[in-house]
Amino acid sequence: MARIVMKFGGTSMAGMERIRSVAARVKREVEAGNQVAVVVSAMAGETDRLVGFCREASSLYDPKEYDVVVSAGEQITSGLLAIALQAAGVPARSWLGWQLPIHTSDAHASARIGDIDTGALNESLERGEVAVIPGFQGLAPGNRVTTLGRGGSDTSAVAVAAAMKADRCDIYTDVDGVYTTDPRIVPRARKLKRVTYEEMLELASVGAKVLQTRSVGLAMKENVRVQVLSSFTGEDAPMADTLPGTMIVGEEEIEDVERQLITGIAHDKNEAKITLTAVPDTPGAVAAIFEPLAGASINVDMIIQNIAHNAGSTDVTFTVPAADLARSIEALNQARGKIGFGELVHDTRVAKISVVGVGMRSHAGVASTMFTTLGARGINIQAISTSEIKVSVLIHEDETELAVRVLHTAYGLDAEDAA
Amino acid sequence: MARIVMKFGGTSMAGMERIRSVAARVKREVEAGNQVAVVVSAMAGETDRLVGFCREASSLYDPKEYDVVVSAGEQITSGLLAIALQAAGVPARSWLGWQLPIHTSDAHASARIGDIDTGALNESLERGEVAVIPGFQGLAPGNRVTTLGRGGSDTSAVAVAAAMKADRCDIYTDVDGVYTTDPRIVPRARKLKRVTYEEMLELASVGAKVLQTRSVGLAMKENVRVQVLSSFTGEDAPMADTLPGTMIVGEEEIEDVERQLITGIAHDKNEAKITLTAVPDTPGAVAAIFEPLAGASINVDMIIQNIAHNAGSTDVTFTVPAADLARSIEALNQARGKIGFGELVHDTRVAKISVVGVGMRSHAGVASTMFTTLGARGINIQAISTSEIKVSVLIHEDETELAVRVLHTAYGLDAEDAA
Repeated sequence: MARIVMKFGGTSMAGMERIRSVAARVKREVEAGNQVAVVVSAMAGETDRLVGFCREASSLYDPKEYDVVVSAGEQITSGLLAIALQAAGVPARSWLGWQLPIHTSDAHASARIGDIDTGALNESLERGEVAVIPGFQGLAPGNRVTTLGRGGSDTSAVAVAAAMKADRCDIYTDVDGVYTTDPRIVPRARKLKRVTYEEMLELASVGAKVLQTRSVGLAMKENVRVQVLSSFTGEDAPMADTLPGTMIVGEEEIEDVERQLITGIAHDKNEAKITLTAVPDTPGAVAAIFEPLAGASINVDMIIQNIAHNAGSTDVTFTVPAADLARSIEALNQARGKIGFGELVHDTRVAKISVVGVGMRSHAGVASTMFTTLGARGINIQAISTSEIKVSVLIHEDETELAVRVLHTAYGLDAEDAA
Repeated sequence: MARIVMKFGGTSMAGMERIRSVAARVKREVEAGNQVAVVVSAMAGETDRLVGFCREASSLYDPKEYDVVVSAGEQITSGLLAIALQAAGVPARSWLGWQLPIHTSDAHASARIGDIDTGALNESLERGEVAVIPGFQGLAPGNRVTTLGRGGSDTSAVAVAAAMKADRCDIYTDVDGVYTTDPRIVPRARKLKRVTYEEMLELASVGAKVLQTRSVGLAMKENVRVQVLSSFTGEDAPMADTLPGTMIVGEEEIEDVERQLITGIAHDKNEAKITLTAVPDTPGAVAAIFEPLAGASINVDMIIQNIAHNAGSTDVTFTVPAADLARSIEALNQARGKIGFGELVHDTRVAKISVVGVGMRSHAGVASTMFTTLGARGINIQAISTSEIKVSVLIHEDETELAVRVLHTAYGLDAEDAA
């Protein structure tokens, strides 16, 4: 017997027919002898509908009341799944955020989960009842409803799994696992059987959008084994304990034999490049650039300071999220007098390509393989950044697919039998 | 300064534009110096949508989970109205059923309200905040969500008014008050300024569907002054404390001078007449008829036992709700051996006409005026029943409008200036 958490997203909960097939999936796990808690999202589109009402009510809506409104979506699907499970002969009940309760901070609309009381939940699980828990919601000090921010149901699932000491947290999603890269670009991309939390964090934050980043961070902190697997397979799908998806685990769980130098290759076209020319090459000049951006809560990613090409001045290049480009330009222009740059040049036709893998900790040469491979294809590198388990380069957007493909081959990631 | 409860139904909450005009209405009461709690229904159509999901999930759905699902509708409108009030500059917050809490019985889907904790509510009202409270929902022992049954928001409003010792409970609805009879039948029907709880109960239960019957019973028990008034009037509508609608009060509040013999005339076409012929005229025979109907929870209303026309047998005629006719026939046929009747004849083309008024307690002749008036128009009376403040007759359905009109004139209820 195992204790497992199963999490289903909005597409899986979109209408009673799909909710019934979720119930059938849950029933298989119960019949296999497992104790099961299910964390659910609202029906696809429902949260947008409710958020739309709040915005219509006031552009400056009270986040406390917003939370009351939008948490209703998961409340509805929780009750409906409990009914569908009972109809399938599986004892079940819903546990709303305030009923368990799932304690959170009082940062309404983007609360963080604290403790989860598990006394009543454990008794219910021991009685053989499936616990259906709405994702995305909790209870703040002062007895008010909170929500965790969009996509928060993944985090709810991991937090519930940690609290109930689950053996596994299965996240059912519209992909069947985490791949070495985007299979739409590289048909020979392989599904990873295991990936470490840290790799997953790098892959998620650079564009492999499978799990909410916060949920991966929480899983790492609480050491919850998270499996990503497909919700779109029928009755004859393999049981989840045969690990048909991708298991996200601590590094110690990955055997040396299956360890690759590089685990995956991610790409992200949502960056914009800004270059400030003729910045005075003096102490404090760079700080003057990034202070106003930090003040506007804009995340700066890659930064290059060129060697001073004229006496006393230099160019500084960096990237920001494309969505923040307009605000970045405004902030920099306002600080122009203080920074003293010549021109501001920007470019959204860029892509960030990252190779990620814990294996590179113990192997040199990862970065040079990357530069050599891209150089051989004539792909120009506009910026570079590195972390302990990642090397990223900025290239022209049009070369994204080519770069991903040649790197996938260069690092030996291609599947042996092509798709 | 007064303490008032304002209750708005689903039509008033159908979309943000209408919710904003509810907020404007509430703001006027706050600016007049009142402490205000608002009880809201779900958006029109929303409860049906949620009930539909539950039925689709299972025809035998768990009422505990049904309550979780359908209570979401009022949760949503509560949050939205709180936002709209804040946007209009009125301090406001929502109080969900479990937050106050509104304690109820554990009869899920048709719970009865018990105590309402008012400690936190009173503090909030004293601070000048408007309390927005979802109707229809409460909290059962064991910390589960309950709902009160369809139309329960009227009852929520009256219960909240009683708990907070409100001076008045204003029910905003799609009519502007209670009339002497249906104005679609009698254009000269007059709006009543005051009506007693008991009259309202008789008028409501016989067809003047303005307020949920349970809410009137609760108002009578708790002595809550309830005003019915229109939600469809603009900014220039008279203030509610000028009592532009109909006030439902105890008999002692109605001055002798404004007391009429008859307060109103109701009609109800949802009855069916059943006649059993040749029932043995022996002790226990009548009991044998009504036992199986009571066993099937069918409400029998008017009953006539004819004088025995043949030696040892008689006809028995009674009415049941038309919706229960099929079940009634089934129950009676199953008990046929025990009852021993000849034929079962039924007729749904009947209408019940009732004249209601506390004035008839001290005046004779009400019933005879009714019979004489109907007889003069050739309207045949098929059955009669009376209570302390009501006389009802059963007639052919086609004569409903004529009967209501001639009675309205006969009892002096016609307005002086015709509409």
